Amino acid sequence: MDITPDNEFIKNSNVPGPTKEEVRCLVMCKSQVSKADVVVDVGCGTGGLTLEFAKRAKKVYAIDKNPEALKTTFKNLQKHGLDDGVDLIEADGTEVLDNLPPFDVLMVGGSGGKMDYLLKRGYKKLKSGGRIVVTSILLETPSEATMVMKDLGMEVDVVGVSISKGKISARGTMMVARNPITIVSAKKALKN
Amino acid sequence: MDITPDNEFIKNSNVPGPTKEEVRCLVMCKSQVSKADVVVDVGCGTGGLTLEFAKRAKKVYAIDKNPEALKTTFKNLQKHGLDDGVDLIEADGTEVLDNLPPFDVLMVGGSGGKMDYLLKRGYKKLKSGGRIVVTSILLETPSEATMVMKDLGMEVDVVGVSISKGKISARGTMMVARNPITIVSAKKALKN
Amino acid sequence: MDITPDNEFIKNSNVPGPTKEEVRCLVMCKSQVSKADVVVDVGCGTGGLTLEFAKRAKKVYAIDKNPEALKTTFKNLQKHGLDDGVDLIEADGTEVLDNLPPFDVLMVGGSGGKMDYLLKRGYKKLKSGGRIVVTSILLETPSEATMVMKDLGMEVDVVGVSISKGKISARGTMMVARNPITIVSAKKALKN
Amino acid sequence: MDITPDNEFIKNSNVPGPTKEEVRCLVMCKSQVSKADVVVDVGCGTGGLTLEFAKRAKKVYAIDKNPEALKTTFKNLQKHGLDDGVDLIEADGTEVLDNLPPFDVLMVGGSGGKMDYLLKRGYKKLKSGGRIVVTSILLETPSEATMVMKDLGMEVDVVGVSISKGKISARGTMMVARNPITIVSAKKALKN
Ligand SMILES: Nc1ncnc2c1ncn2[C@@H]1O[C@H](CSCC[C@H](N)C(=O)O)[C@@H](O)[C@H]1O
Ligand SMILES: Nc1ncnc2c1ncn2[C@@H]1O[C@H](CSCC[C@H](N)C(=O)O)[C@@H](O)[C@H]1O
Ligand SMILES: Nc1ncnc2c1ncn2[C@@H]1O[C@H](CSCC[C@H](N)C(=O)O)[C@@H](O)[C@H]1O
Ligand SMILES: Nc1ncnc2c1ncn2[C@@H]1O[C@H](CSCC[C@H](N)C(=O)O)[C@@H](O)[C@H]1O
Repeated sequence: MDITPDNEFIKNSNVPGPTKEEVRCLVMCKSQVSKADVVVDVGCGTGGLTLEFAKRAKKVYAIDKNPEALKTTFKNLQKHGLDDGVDLIEADGTEVLDNLPPFDVLMVGGSGGKMDYLLKRGYKKLKSGGRIVVTSILLETPSEATMVMKDLGMEVDVVGVSISKGKISARGTMMVARNPITIVSAKKALKN
Repeated sequence: MDITPDNEFIKNSNVPGPTKEEVRCLVMCKSQVSKADVVVDVGCGTGGLTLEFAKRAKKVYAIDKNPEALKTTFKNLQKHGLDDGVDLIEADGTEVLDNLPPFDVLMVGGSGGKMDYLLKRGYKKLKSGGRIVVTSILLETPSEATMVMKDLGMEVDVVGVSISKGKISARGTMMVARNPITIVSAKKALKN
Repeated sequence: MDITPDNEFIKNSNVPGPTKEEVRCLVMCKSQVSKADVVVDVGCGTGGLTLEFAKRAKKVYAIDKNPEALKTTFKNLQKHGLDDGVDLIEADGTEVLDNLPPFDVLMVGGSGGKMDYLLKRGYKKLKSGGRIVVTSILLETPSEATMVMKDLGMEVDVVGVSISKGKISARGTMMVARNPITIVSAKKALKN
Repeated sequence: MDITPDNEFIKNSNVPGPTKEEVRCLVMCKSQVSKADVVVDVGCGTGGLTLEFAKRAKKVYAIDKNPEALKTTFKNLQKHGLDDGVDLIEADGTEVLDNLPPFDVLMVGGSGGKMDYLLKRGYKKLKSGGRIVVTSILLETPSEATMVMKDLGMEVDVVGVSISKGKISARGTMMVARNPITIVSAKKALKN
């Protein structure tokens, strides 16, 4: 299970991300991504999650409404030799989900206040057995995402994650906090 | 990245574990385990980590001084069809490391006050490029493990992890805390 | 600054609380309670916060819709000689706020899905310079309380609190997590 | 319970602190400081804790080995009209504890690797019924402080504190983490 270190990402001051290493690791587990999967990453930002999905999936659609996010994501994919198999789409996620082929994983890293629409629309295109994963640093987003997923009849997994990292110096190991993140995820029932 | 749900483990009231799902996920990332690896899991307990390693490594040596831990670990491996490729060894980790073949990952989930000895001894048998991972719920263990790894000349990664899980009811989503865990890890330099 | 230890409270299995020691301490600070204050504690539960307010305020109105909560709160006040100056009111908070005299602190420890109504009604009876404090273990409540307070034109302080407590044994100090709590508070502007 | 807001402190880039509002609040509770108390604050830094003790105690001795810390502490006390009743001492805490009168509270906010000596020396001068409080952002300090207090026969309270603060914007409430702090405290037994 190889996760790219945080400091190997090219950053852009106008683009949020990359999602920190430990959270990328947890998102990979929650998404249950595997080699046969088609993944849609709405709000790809710096490409932190896109890159991890690119290592593990068959196909990734990375979407962002900010053109600089797509440039940065592309640079990071290219730097790590992972741009093959990733389509970069400059658009609002709400406008483009309908035109994509059915997918196995819907990742939402940014919604711009359109969570309800994104999740409901995405759910329709999600294959049965597929997973939705939402990450957020906002207080409001996790409860909204949870509510929508419950409305869709899904069994929701909500995980609050607080990570601190040791900064080692002569004085000792100072524990530096990362901002808390909430990961909300759910699986679409298998048809029977 | 498939992590076995917490509730799929057989438990034994005399054996700690399994390490919770999210922490197992993070340990898999920190260990960088892959199909070519030999893993030693000192203090296998319920087999939570052993089972995840068994899915991803070539060979796992699971060690515990408590015979009930080995029985429980075996039951869990068997339940998930993963007992092939795992050797179960009833012993104190300090007494058995020397007799094992060189390994790629040393996992320490329990040390019984012998961290210094375990890590120094383990380091000798660790292949170059190999990883050591220590998890602990104790206040004292992370600083001890960090100190020993620093003494061994390793660059140490210390991560404090606080996870809470949503319990969904009619009233809302109650966030239930898991005990905080510290993961200390390091990589043995590649020979040049 | 004297905070009553958690284990000195009489508990009742049908009543939540008491709010843990460290959170009671933080609520006292956020409420800025002082000897001249009238405090309303909606959802007094076991009386954890009521008792701390009773030590520091002029007058406390403790409200709960559960009669067992009021009995438990009374027992705890009596045990600590603090029942003078506390009025216990069995009612839904929404039905009784209007009949109370103006107050300096509105504490909401339980709302039963009526946060919006409670805060808006409470705000009217809150003296200028008065404080509202909401504590919650739910994912949904903090964002709702924040939204209502913002709508009321208040400057809102949101604090996520994760506490772990050391359990000392021969093996070391095991850090045991308390469930995370969010404290949302705000001050009503002084008239000018 | 009035705690000075973080942004009311004068800062100095060469001096750590002030201890954040919520942690100052908790330290006041753990120290059980009251109007009759003599407090010694070793490692006063910016004066964050000194100032809170100055509001609540009879006398505070604020000690720091860094002359800039004492200047900054003095400025903050003066700004808030609290410099009366505080003695500022430029010294290593280990060199000056012996010359102070007996005290009720020993606060250690910085030890410079001399925790063992500071606590043992301080314990001797601590009145019976007095409290020791240690705060730290380091991984190593809490376990060392716990060990020394246990050796001194004290019953130790260890509290891990992770605080995040909401930053409210048009997009929502972003939760920003403060670095985790551990508070170790204990009370000296009353003579009988
Ligand atoms: N409705 C929407 N459609 C497409 N992109 C959106 C969106 N709302 C927000 N975004 C984008 O979501 C991103 C969130 S930041 C995501 C960071 C990313 N997970 C990483 O690891 O690098 C921003 O770049 C923002 O432009
Ligand atoms: N020196 C030592 N050698 C071998 N086992 C040890 C040991 N010290 C402690 N242990 C074992 O370490 C275990 C820690 S509990 C480990 C839980 C495990 N990671 C899981 O996920 O299930 C206990 O079973 C204990 O018996
Ligand atoms: N609308 C409402 N009016 C009055 N009480 C309410 C209410 N909604 C919930 N409650 C009460 O709120 C309480 C929440 S538990 C509060 C615990 C308390 N702070 C302590 O420290 O002990 C419960 O007892 C519940 O009965
Ligand atoms: N042995 C020692 N004696 C005196 N001061 C010390 C010391 N070791 C460290 N310090 C001081 O401890 C301080 C720690 S920072 C303390 C911040 C303070 N509690 C606040 O709220 O502002 C530093 O200023 C450092 O100079």
